[in-house]
Amino acid sequence: MNDKRIATVKPVDEQQATGKVAEIFADIKQTKNIDFVPNLWRVLATNPVQLEQVWTMLKTLMHPEAAGRRSCLDAATREIIALAVSASNGCAYCVNSHTAALRKQGLSTEAQGEVLAIAGLFNMTNALADGYQVEPDVLPPVD
Amino acid sequence: MNDKRIATVKPVDEQQATGKVAEIFADIKQTKNIDFVPNLWRVLATNPVQLEQVWTMLKTLMHPEAAGRRSCLDAATREIIALAVSASNGCAYCVNSHTAALRKQGLSTEAQGEVLAIAGLFNMTNALADGYQVEPDVLPPVD
Amino acid sequence: MNDKRIATVKPVDEQQATGKVAEIFADIKQTKNIDFVPNLWRVLATNPVQLEQVWTMLKTLMHPEAAGRRSCLDAATREIIALAVSASNGCAYCVNSHTAALRKQGLSTEAQGEVLAIAGLFNMTNALADGYQVEPDVLPPVD
Amino acid sequence: MNDKRIATVKPVDEQQATGKVAEIFADIKQTKNIDFVPNLWRVLATNPVQLEQVWTMLKTLMHPEAAGRRSCLDAATREIIALAVSASNGCAYCVNSHTAALRKQGLSTEAQGEVLAIAGLFNMTNALADGYQVEPDVLPPVD
Amino acid sequence: MNDKRIATVKPVDEQQATGKVAEIFADIKQTKNIDFVPNLWRVLATNPVQLEQVWTMLKTLMHPEAAGRRSCLDAATREIIALAVSASNGCAYCVNSHTAALRKQGLSTEAQGEVLAIAGLFNMTNALADGYQVEPDVLPPVD
Amino acid sequence: MNDKRIATVKPVDEQQATGKVAEIFADIKQTKNIDFVPNLWRVLATNPVQLEQVWTMLKTLMHPEAAGRRSCLDAATREIIALAVSASNGCAYCVNSHTAALRKQGLSTEAQGEVLAIAGLFNMTNALADGYQVEPDVLPPVD
Repeated sequence: MNDKRIATVKPVDEQQATGKVAEIFADIKQTKNIDFVPNLWRVLATNPVQLEQVWTMLKTLMHPEAAGRRSCLDAATREIIALAVSASNGCAYCVNSHTAALRKQGLSTEAQGEVLAIAGLFNMTNALADGYQVEPDVLPPVD
Repeated sequence: MNDKRIATVKPVDEQQATGKVAEIFADIKQTKNIDFVPNLWRVLATNPVQLEQVWTMLKTLMHPEAAGRRSCLDAATREIIALAVSASNGCAYCVNSHTAALRKQGLSTEAQGEVLAIAGLFNMTNALADGYQVEPDVLPPVD
Repeated sequence: MNDKRIATVKPVDEQQATGKVAEIFADIKQTKNIDFVPNLWRVLATNPVQLEQVWTMLKTLMHPEAAGRRSCLDAATREIIALAVSASNGCAYCVNSHTAALRKQGLSTEAQGEVLAIAGLFNMTNALADGYQVEPDVLPPVD
Repeated sequence: MNDKRIATVKPVDEQQATGKVAEIFADIKQTKNIDFVPNLWRVLATNPVQLEQVWTMLKTLMHPEAAGRRSCLDAATREIIALAVSASNGCAYCVNSHTAALRKQGLSTEAQGEVLAIAGLFNMTNALADGYQVEPDVLPPVD
Repeated sequence: MNDKRIATVKPVDEQQATGKVAEIFADIKQTKNIDFVPNLWRVLATNPVQLEQVWTMLKTLMHPEAAGRRSCLDAATREIIALAVSASNGCAYCVNSHTAALRKQGLSTEAQGEVLAIAGLFNMTNALADGYQVEPDVLPPVD
Repeated sequence: MNDKRIATVKPVDEQQATGKVAEIFADIKQTKNIDFVPNLWRVLATNPVQLEQVWTMLKTLMHPEAAGRRSCLDAATREIIALAVSASNGCAYCVNSHTAALRKQGLSTEAQGEVLAIAGLFNMTNALADGYQVEPDVLPPVD
């Protein structure tokens, strides 16, 4: 696979992006503090509406300060959710990407192990609770 | 469904538990600081080996102090992983149970919303990355 | 929900089935040795081509003798696969149905527990192997 | 991996297929209007009963004219469902195969993006609805 | 469960919504041409940022005319993707909701059956392709 | 990828393992009757608590004699569950590993085909039952 082919579409080259796509590419690099546009975004750029939508949502949720809001969760916790979900779904691209992000934030190998151990545990108990069709004990209280 | 039937098996009644099962039931209530044995554990008790194994693992990972170890993650983060995974898998019992646990730890409705929003976001991007077969940018660094 | 409504479609009533659908309903009851047509088949009968296809495949795989073939697996093992997959996917209808089938075949509560424990274990290790992106050790040998 | 090894079994070589398998291989090439037998079918051919069953079902549903029936859905819509499901499950073989089929039918990169965007969106809302345990508003009407 | 409790949070009452939430509720009813706010949106409204994000994305993708864009897919195809994904994930809320939307668009029971049959088929072939670890035949061509 | 890198962490080298990890590595090789430590276990060893927990559970469930207990299921049935679950989840590492284990136990290609065919079938019917929201016929009897 040469560098022109990283998916089932031909990704938009960073140097050739113009207009809205170029603006979003620049925002991605600045917001994430990286010097390249990750493959997922170059692929989504083949459909600019989709690129803008997914980036807007991801920026709002995962980079709240850059999006001008306050989050109840810290940055590491947000990435931990991303890794736990991606591991549960078996998405290679996303596991690699969020593991790299967590390393950059200083997550130790031991902590990474705990995240995956806990994600694994609940994939197990989900199958047990569903496999036995266990009834909820009680609904959680609401305010 | 009367109170004798909460699953595809007849759960072990707390009052009738003996031996190892009774010990584990007591440990569950003490460790979780609750005054009843949740349905999942009463169901798993129909197979005592399984009860012991799942409880040992859950206690070690989710109640580390009670298990005599130190965790890299705080209690809320651990429950947040549980909720995110259970939401991704659509497990009703587990969503109710972990939402209740997070409320008890003081998680606000707004923070709950953020956890689920982020879990939802990565269920979306997992489908996008896999749906386009996007290649990883680079592998995360290892120590 | 009255008894006319068991799904997002109105199921075909056993007494009102005619032609191909009536034949398949009769075959289902005889092959499975039951005196009613389970809801899934009454629902699939709203689309007779689909009913015939799914029933033909299920009869061939799960009731090989009735379909005139020999299976490498025994009847209990076949139902155990059905339960393990349904538990992993969290499908309530299928968990109930295959648990009932396994009870009819004499599966004990303890053995049911083992099936679900093993299914749970591999839902966990699947998440771990994918969550760490572990490379295969070696490919399995082929003949 | 040499060309003898494309899976955990040794696939049936097109030139060496005989009898029923050879007939189905010929039908696959004619029905799909391609000049090779895709790997999935060569692998399924290691178990001829399975090959026949899966091919019969796929031909009936995905190539209705060839199977002598009329479909309510057009060919592109049928392939779109295949891609959306395969993206949701993260199946690389199936994503590649159905993307290729859609290209052959003339689907643009922009339309492919919409299919995946919508599939991604509902993987997100499924997690949200399940993660909050939202009750259905009302059941859909039945005829 | 009384009408104050439809989820693990207390949904925002339509009559009590104000500001941004009230505006979005009005837009949902107008865009979808319905006279009530579905439960999912009342629940998401407990976290207004999330409500706005998910509604903006859903409106853009599923109601393109209302969002001022042109879609490559027709309205029925878009809802069919939603149903196929929701069936694959087993999300009850979403299956009910999208089945109702498809009925409103005139989808027949037979066509609904085809959508689900095809979704079911590819859940099967996804498991087969992954279960045998089948290699892709060839990558789909890109422009 | 050189041989130092088989995952998102650097695996523990068999020759450099000490203490508890070395003991578990030895137990894995003896219990499984193999002469190397599979990659999954070398990776889990980066977090020794996790290694011990997962191995203890897997040994108890999958190698009951070595763990001093009696299983209701035979060894082949236990591995068949592992393969069926791993195929359903699309986990490459686990599919390869459990296929290899089944070959070692003498499972024929035809039987492997049946296992995957049945796993595939129930991934399909799970989607159908959930996609139509079919109500359970009756709950399975409990003792």
